[in-house]
Amino acid sequence: MAVSVLESEIREQPEAVERLLARVEDDLRPLGAAVERRPPSYVLVAARGTSDNAARYAQYLLGGRLGLPVALAAPSLTSVYAEESHLRIRDALVIGISQSGRSPDVVEVLRVARAGGSPSVALTNDPESPLAAAADFVVPLCAGPERAVAATKTYTASLVALAALDAMLRGAREDLDRLHALPSVLADAVQLAFADVAALDGHAAARHVLSLGRGVNLATAFELALKVRELCAVVAEGFSPADILHGPIAATAPGTPVLVVDVGGPARESLAEAVAALEARGAAPARITDVAGDGPVLRIPRGLPEWLTPIPAIVPGQVYALHQATLRGLDVDRPAGLTKVTTTF
Amino acid sequence: MAVSVLESEIREQPEAVERLLARVEDDLRPLGAAVERRPPSYVLVAARGTSDNAARYAQYLLGGRLGLPVALAAPSLTSVYAEESHLRIRDALVIGISQSGRSPDVVEVLRVARAGGSPSVALTNDPESPLAAAADFVVPLCAGPERAVAATKTYTASLVALAALDAMLRGAREDLDRLHALPSVLADAVQLAFADVAALDGHAAARHVLSLGRGVNLATAFELALKVRELCAVVAEGFSPADILHGPIAATAPGTPVLVVDVGGPARESLAEAVAALEARGAAPARITDVAGDGPVLRIPRGLPEWLTPIPAIVPGQVYALHQATLRGLDVDRPAGLTKVTTTF
Repeated sequence: MAVSVLESEIREQPEAVERLLARVEDDLRPLGAAVERRPPSYVLVAARGTSDNAARYAQYLLGGRLGLPVALAAPSLTSVYAEESHLRIRDALVIGISQSGRSPDVVEVLRVARAGGSPSVALTNDPESPLAAAADFVVPLCAGPERAVAATKTYTASLVALAALDAMLRGAREDLDRLHALPSVLADAVQLAFADVAALDGHAAARHVLSLGRGVNLATAFELALKVRELCAVVAEGFSPADILHGPIAATAPGTPVLVVDVGGPARESLAEAVAALEARGAAPARITDVAGDGPVLRIPRGLPEWLTPIPAIVPGQVYALHQATLRGLDVDRPAGLTKVTTTF
Repeated sequence: MAVSVLESEIREQPEAVERLLARVEDDLRPLGAAVERRPPSYVLVAARGTSDNAARYAQYLLGGRLGLPVALAAPSLTSVYAEESHLRIRDALVIGISQSGRSPDVVEVLRVARAGGSPSVALTNDPESPLAAAADFVVPLCAGPERAVAATKTYTASLVALAALDAMLRGAREDLDRLHALPSVLADAVQLAFADVAALDGHAAARHVLSLGRGVNLATAFELALKVRELCAVVAEGFSPADILHGPIAATAPGTPVLVVDVGGPARESLAEAVAALEARGAAPARITDVAGDGPVLRIPRGLPEWLTPIPAIVPGQVYALHQATLRGLDVDRPAGLTKVTTTF
């Protein structure tokens, strides 16, 4: 059987990230200088779809490490509501994330940022795109053409660009150096994921899939759910353990698969509490983890600091979604009802 | 049959809002003075569960009208990740929303705000709560004891408090005056909702329910979905029309009920596009609306400006969730697996 475009792109992630790392510091340096001249009070990220999950990573990464609160933009304020909106973006660092650079509402947020005097940076796979043109600074994701409808390599590239941006703005040379381990970590993650994924073949009849993550890996839970939803045409949802206990747990039926992104850190205790509550309702948890333990597991390489784990941790999620879709007889390169670039305002 | 606590509380909303309106301007005045002395660059809202949907209303209301970008806090940065987090909240107006005032992670966000010199206000039903103690200013929601696990009257009270806050900070006397129409609008909304709700009895076998809204009514779509999920123990999700086309639409099965919050304004066109795409996949849309039109409808009173429509528009959603749960033979006052106050960090 021919390898799908999606599988090829999942396997390309190590080299895509290697290309990005070869130039990302040079691309970020002018932004670093601008931020030093005029430190922002907060960060505003504009993104849609998969890129919005990268924005979620930024929320915890930049919030916790750089120390700046991160707002996720409400793009319709600058698109469908533009005429009546009084939005002014001042004292912010604005980050636009879009694979294609052609999401019109994301582009508009950067235009409003410019009008308010806030510097902006575009993370995009197309440095010739409208988003790049609207930004003060551009970080090309260097992922190469992404042809599968379900984004994979541009997601990991976006996370790496954000990790580099955080390290650059903190002037943390050792953290920038640490990023160069990522291509080999990602290669290991791809190998482990394809080796382990059949352990969850029993999920192939599920009509509802949950994922749980916390902190920087809330993004992983969200992105894993989005891949499952896009590729398997089932309802899949990511939650933080706190939020699922605030209502959504009531709708969890016995046998529902729950993928728990469990890579340690202070999140472990609250994850365990939510997993126990889900098990009490009959859900079937499996873990994406870098440590041994009970139950079915999709492994990721050990030894990364927690803030970098989302980069390899999404890989078993991508492979899981690909594999589950294949078990369900679906075409992973042409998921029903989706298009690559959504231009809806 | 005895009326449920939930139904009583849904019906109490007009009087709850009337009590709030009798004092909210006095409660907000000191905050207005503080903001005038030191105008913030942005707003940070901390909330969980139903209150997080009120925060979503704030995002569009304050973003579009007051013109300040609104960040929704990542509460775990100040709770489970507090020890390693460097978060500093400067130049912000911070709003904590919690019915009980006892969500510890929401309280922590306000403590961090105080350390960063940002003024904070608590919107809470308990002015003696830890949240109130941590805030510089307190707006009691005055909703009276809320005994049903599924929050209703504290949600509408939170929206009204936010609408008053927006109008106060803009110095818009005419908008503050306009709020006094809300108790009678809510009374009409309750009456219409109970009159109309049986039109959707055909939904009672659905295992997946969608709601769609945009702008200020994205909050309505989210909160409607949360009520259905809490009370009916089915998977229910709210989306903006833009986001649903970015992936989630792939998982929509034929016959899925979609409640479309359609109250006009610039959102109508993008809602219509998403509804057409959902219909093409066999979904069954119904509208919550203030205008006539095709298909099944839950009416809300006419004549409100769009920014106030979320206050009555949630009422048919609450009544729909109550009625659907009753059709399914569920106990609306004791939904399986939920507790009123979730103290998980």
